[in-house]
Amino acid sequence: MISISDQSDFSIHNIPFGIFSTADRSKRAGCAIGHQIIDLQVLADKIDLGFDRQVLSAETLNNFIGLGKQVTSHLRARIQAWLRDDASVLYAQEGIFVEQSDAQMHMPVHVGDYTDFYSSIEHATNVGKMFRDPANALLPNWRHLPVGYHGRASSIVVSGAPLHRPCGQLMPKGADQPIYGPTGRLDFELEMAFIIGKENGLGNPISVNDAEDYIFGMVIFNDWSARDIQKWEYVPLGPFLGKNFGSSISPWIVTMEALDHFRVSGPTQQPAVLDYLSSSGDRNYDISLEVGIQPHGSEEAVVCRSNFKYMYWNMCQQLAHHTVNGCNVRIGDMLASGTISGKDESSYGSMLELSWAGSKSLPMTDGTERKFIHDGDTVKMRAFAQKDGRRVGFGEVSTQILPHK
Amino acid sequence: MISISDQSDFSIHNIPFGIFSTADRSKRAGCAIGHQIIDLQVLADKIDLGFDRQVLSAETLNNFIGLGKQVTSHLRARIQAWLRDDASVLYAQEGIFVEQSDAQMHMPVHVGDYTDFYSSIEHATNVGKMFRDPANALLPNWRHLPVGYHGRASSIVVSGAPLHRPCGQLMPKGADQPIYGPTGRLDFELEMAFIIGKENGLGNPISVNDAEDYIFGMVIFNDWSARDIQKWEYVPLGPFLGKNFGSSISPWIVTMEALDHFRVSGPTQQPAVLDYLSSSGDRNYDISLEVGIQPHGSEEAVVCRSNFKYMYWNMCQQLAHHTVNGCNVRIGDMLASGTISGKDESSYGSMLELSWAGSKSLPMTDGTERKFIHDGDTVKMRAFAQKDGRRVGFGEVSTQILPHK
Repeated sequence: MISISDQSDFSIHNIPFGIFSTADRSKRAGCAIGHQIIDLQVLADKIDLGFDRQVLSAETLNNFIGLGKQVTSHLRARIQAWLRDDASVLYAQEGIFVEQSDAQMHMPVHVGDYTDFYSSIEHATNVGKMFRDPANALLPNWRHLPVGYHGRASSIVVSGAPLHRPCGQLMPKGADQPIYGPTGRLDFELEMAFIIGKENGLGNPISVNDAEDYIFGMVIFNDWSARDIQKWEYVPLGPFLGKNFGSSISPWIVTMEALDHFRVSGPTQQPAVLDYLSSSGDRNYDISLEVGIQPHGSEEAVVCRSNFKYMYWNMCQQLAHHTVNGCNVRIGDMLASGTISGKDESSYGSMLELSWAGSKSLPMTDGTERKFIHDGDTVKMRAFAQKDGRRVGFGEVSTQILPHK
Repeated sequence: MISISDQSDFSIHNIPFGIFSTADRSKRAGCAIGHQIIDLQVLADKIDLGFDRQVLSAETLNNFIGLGKQVTSHLRARIQAWLRDDASVLYAQEGIFVEQSDAQMHMPVHVGDYTDFYSSIEHATNVGKMFRDPANALLPNWRHLPVGYHGRASSIVVSGAPLHRPCGQLMPKGADQPIYGPTGRLDFELEMAFIIGKENGLGNPISVNDAEDYIFGMVIFNDWSARDIQKWEYVPLGPFLGKNFGSSISPWIVTMEALDHFRVSGPTQQPAVLDYLSSSGDRNYDISLEVGIQPHGSEEAVVCRSNFKYMYWNMCQQLAHHTVNGCNVRIGDMLASGTISGKDESSYGSMLELSWAGSKSLPMTDGTERKFIHDGDTVKMRAFAQKDGRRVGFGEVSTQILPHK
């Protein structure tokens, strides 16, 4: 039977889904377990899984997810049972297990539309204090609705894919004409994103109480941001080139079933929200988050420790709001949380906040300092839930920044 | 030989591409000619077109467009030659021509990402006057870059598909708490959109001078807007639910080759733009636009006559700006102009401007008046270019508004 370290993100309680390939296996679906992957295409060759196994040989998980939770949850439960059974198909056959170190991970889904929220009250307050009025940091709408906007789906990449420092139009401080050049304020944003597993169809709002049925699972989401480009462009229609040069995600989709054990209540919402946003029960999740910066040729320094449980607006509220006007969501759509900051300074989820708009520096392990991200730096984000001896983690999203072209 | 009315949008100079079906033909590619459609799947059965004919039997034109302009332009030129030749394959075979009245049109492309610009100086000035400072209507960035934002791809529908009046969160004038309800300020926005025909790949900007190679063709775009939802939600991250309940397009993609004859110079840009946005030559297009409102059971009243040539920022500048940071565009991506208003009040491209934020009413043919769009109204937008006896048109995008659910 497989042996899994207590500290593995990919315990038997997890069984996340992803798309991988190896030197001799084309892109296909797999589940992470410990330091290995269960090749679902090979598994389906050995045993009838009760659904069209073509969905496991596709380049993305969209069609598999589209089979519905009845199918995907059932498969996950069977794999858990088989892992515990020495005589099961998993151990009786060759070629089912692949070392993660031998595999390359790919985008797990085709993302039809990507939405980014702004749902951490600590983050929104910090940004409001820095750029607007410290006494009125939150805008009037913020406590009444989960503010969000549409982002770029095409430039979402998976962990491991490097990104070039973007160039663009900037307005230097005190200048009266903008210039063209590379961003001087390249930043990460620590976010989580959820992935749609069921479609509503145009014109059909999803109620806040039904929303969980539409959420398949989650990934870590690094919403790369060029603060100087963003600052000059974003009025009045929102972020555009300051964001759309790239976003990075962790490769394994952790299912909502795996996260169920880690539910917690969210912060009290004051004033009370409108009925269509009103939900009861524990809709937040206790997921520990951290961000490290690794300068080229040096060791990583952890610069942020936060938690997904801090979110003011939960995912069900986000999805109910997103569709209240009839907007349709499709399988594979990705909805990100917005930067997840906590109350403590060490829990701020972006360099913008950690360096307080560049007014202070963070020490690196090689003796250098950072206000924003340098060329050659690798930013790593990790996320895991742990309780009652049970660990369910996301692995990491790791992205190196290359010089501008 | 086929006879085509002088007033047809679909002259031999046009040959636009679309996806249609009939009672006995599944979805497939076609070209509009006069009041008929050339069934490209049937054509490919009769003659070797020199490329994989499967692309013509697909549900969208993406793979056909992906063959490149060398292929698509050549096919268009051959069709033009065949149409002029009584002995050609078009006339020698049965089943090639289908009446447009017997066909249903579908979305011509799968839209990976949809971007909306804000590139009419008259529109941006009108909005700035109404909502901000009449003396400083344009924001500081407006003349330096084509302001844009990401919109919703999933809810783009084709002409003929009705939309329900959206509900959402509104802040009534003078209230101190928002309410939930149907929008009271449903509006159209008269726009044109271009469709990407060539991919750049993440990290590779498209230069303003290369941009035309990446543009396959254009459609009319109605960017439906709920002004009261938008007003309350849009600070600081831009429009979201005020827009994403639906956008409507005309079904035929008019190629850039067909529009080449109608090039004109654009407005002088002052101050001069940065090098990466600087282009020479005639990059605007003289395309007449009009919008009609047809109350249920009554005749249409034309409420706006505008022209695409008014655009301050041209499509090449929009695409160069969009990708200057390395953002990747994919085949089928749709980039809309923003509302196209002219200088004259009768050329304003939205009810927001035509009714000047609801301060005046427009007469309908049935004796009623409109400040915004009523339930049962059908909004029709038409576009065509005409010069030297040559007419190239887009047909129309027609959308009825149904009551809220």
